[in-house]
Amino acid sequence: MKGTAYDGAGRLRTVTVEAEPPGPGELQIAVAYCGLCGTDLHIAHGNMDARVRTPLIFGHEASGTVAAVGPGVDGWAVGDPLTVMPLIWDGTCAACLAGHQHICQNLTFVGIDSPGALQQRWNVPASIAVPLPAGLDLRTAALVEPVAVAVHDVRRAELQVGDHVVVLGGGPIGVLIASVARHAGARVLMVEIDATRRRLIAGLGFDVLDPADDDLAAEVEHRTAGTGADVVFEVSGAAAAVRSATALAKVRGTIVVVAIHPAPREIDLQRVFWRELRLVGARVYRRSDFARAIELLHQGVIPAGELISGVVPLEETAAAVADLSSGRAMKILVDVAGQEQA
Amino acid sequence: MKGTAYDGAGRLRTVTVEAEPPGPGELQIAVAYCGLCGTDLHIAHGNMDARVRTPLIFGHEASGTVAAVGPGVDGWAVGDPLTVMPLIWDGTCAACLAGHQHICQNLTFVGIDSPGALQQRWNVPASIAVPLPAGLDLRTAALVEPVAVAVHDVRRAELQVGDHVVVLGGGPIGVLIASVARHAGARVLMVEIDATRRRLIAGLGFDVLDPADDDLAAEVEHRTAGTGADVVFEVSGAAAAVRSATALAKVRGTIVVVAIHPAPREIDLQRVFWRELRLVGARVYRRSDFARAIELLHQGVIPAGELISGVVPLEETAAAVADLSSGRAMKILVDVAGQEQA
Repeated sequence: MKGTAYDGAGRLRTVTVEAEPPGPGELQIAVAYCGLCGTDLHIAHGNMDARVRTPLIFGHEASGTVAAVGPGVDGWAVGDPLTVMPLIWDGTCAACLAGHQHICQNLTFVGIDSPGALQQRWNVPASIAVPLPAGLDLRTAALVEPVAVAVHDVRRAELQVGDHVVVLGGGPIGVLIASVARHAGARVLMVEIDATRRRLIAGLGFDVLDPADDDLAAEVEHRTAGTGADVVFEVSGAAAAVRSATALAKVRGTIVVVAIHPAPREIDLQRVFWRELRLVGARVYRRSDFARAIELLHQGVIPAGELISGVVPLEETAAAVADLSSGRAMKILVDVAGQEQA
Repeated sequence: MKGTAYDGAGRLRTVTVEAEPPGPGELQIAVAYCGLCGTDLHIAHGNMDARVRTPLIFGHEASGTVAAVGPGVDGWAVGDPLTVMPLIWDGTCAACLAGHQHICQNLTFVGIDSPGALQQRWNVPASIAVPLPAGLDLRTAALVEPVAVAVHDVRRAELQVGDHVVVLGGGPIGVLIASVARHAGARVLMVEIDATRRRLIAGLGFDVLDPADDDLAAEVEHRTAGTGADVVFEVSGAAAAVRSATALAKVRGTIVVVAIHPAPREIDLQRVFWRELRLVGARVYRRSDFARAIELLHQGVIPAGELISGVVPLEETAAAVADLSSGRAMKILVDVAGQEQA
């Protein structure tokens, strides 16, 4: 069977390896699709070399069907559609014992710290497999993982119906957060610097501003009659967006830190104090977020078709990474099974 | 009657003015004591000239008795002991309507935006007067306002019994937060750079570290078996303390921003994201915080005597401000009535 392996900064290659049977407690997945995300780009560019061991078959936004059931696994049958929640926690650290298993202090992220979904036969612990409903196509199902991120982010915000929400950054996660928040009854304003992305976002029915040209503060002031935004999601990773976040949030408003900020950022703590703001970090997802993400995709709430810029064969993973890195594409799926080429 | 007026950067003078009778809805207070705080120092140094109108009789940490009852005021009699919660809100802005009157978008802070307590006869709206219990001496009662700040900060933290708490900054508010948190069942570690303050803090039974010499991270790691602090209060205003706060907090830990940071600060948002930290601003207090502060002082929970470095006559307000600015003193009360000199 084939797979895509990362083999050092900038080097992705297609590998052919013997499929191994699933071990005790494992499922073997016939992977259908695997989406590529920002973390995958970081891996491909060599930014995570301190963490990953090469060669690494990466990828963690998977959909597929059960190809084989390992010893001791109940409740699954060959052919069952599924996705994977790619987190393995130790269950013993203080975070786990406090109920925050998803941010376990010794978390294994499958596809980064162990082999991922960019292979045609993928063995995973049955405990992290998540069943998919009949009727949810496997292309769409490859978005479950990023939608679960967005569900988790919105839950961390403690969003209320009717809230004014600003989403800073209109990449895939930003658009998904906006979609989940809108479905939860929020009034959403998006902010994105790239004109192509702004056109796509506007096409999804969202109001969207250009932070370089538009006066964000005046617009939020106008929309909220001077009150400010109930919730600001910082999804851009930009230093300027951190300044906007504190400026736009209302008294007792919430800022959710979704983006990765590799360097320390300047923040207006005087504003945090003065308005009694709340700033919360939001990382990955819980099992309940996965379940909700599947429902939202199944119900057609998420604009999956519009977000998927393209589907490429496994052999073109490197080209897809280049397209995503340039910002030309939103979400690209790898057709791991090769069925669309067949 | 006499008072202390701020009349431009560095200029405090004793003034003698005619006492006016209380207007409708007002109480006239015979001020006994007025504590001086960091905000008063900022006023005296001219840092708040953009906000204050001179000459300003400042001061907002008052205790006293009712000297006269204005027309239309019920429930008060001459001689009743009282303090003042120095906040007047508009009741109509979005913050007020959401129940956050204490951080009203058009808040009047009495003693900054209107005349304060450094005068022997002080007229205030009866709505902001707070009765004191019999048996709480008026010296101690001058601490109600800063204790209410500490109560509010601890409430914003959503502290739980047994929590590991780190207080960064051991000035009066830091020590009061530590005292309130300890009484609420927390295990408290204080961090203070000044050796004199560290000695006082240690004398109150708190563990205290020197951030210049001690390894805070190792100590918190040791105390919490590698978990990290449940709550970190940032009370120092120092840039380095912001770095410590994110480093010391556990997964899903809370950082309370109590100090005023006049300039933007660098913050490790990657850590906020990774550990799903929560950072909240905490400003002034609610009426319920005032009530709790009075109880705690009445019960002797707060080390009031140890915190009061000195009591000076009204004419020596400027010298007291100089002592506080140098860090030589913790809390100095002004004997507004002049009874200790009598």
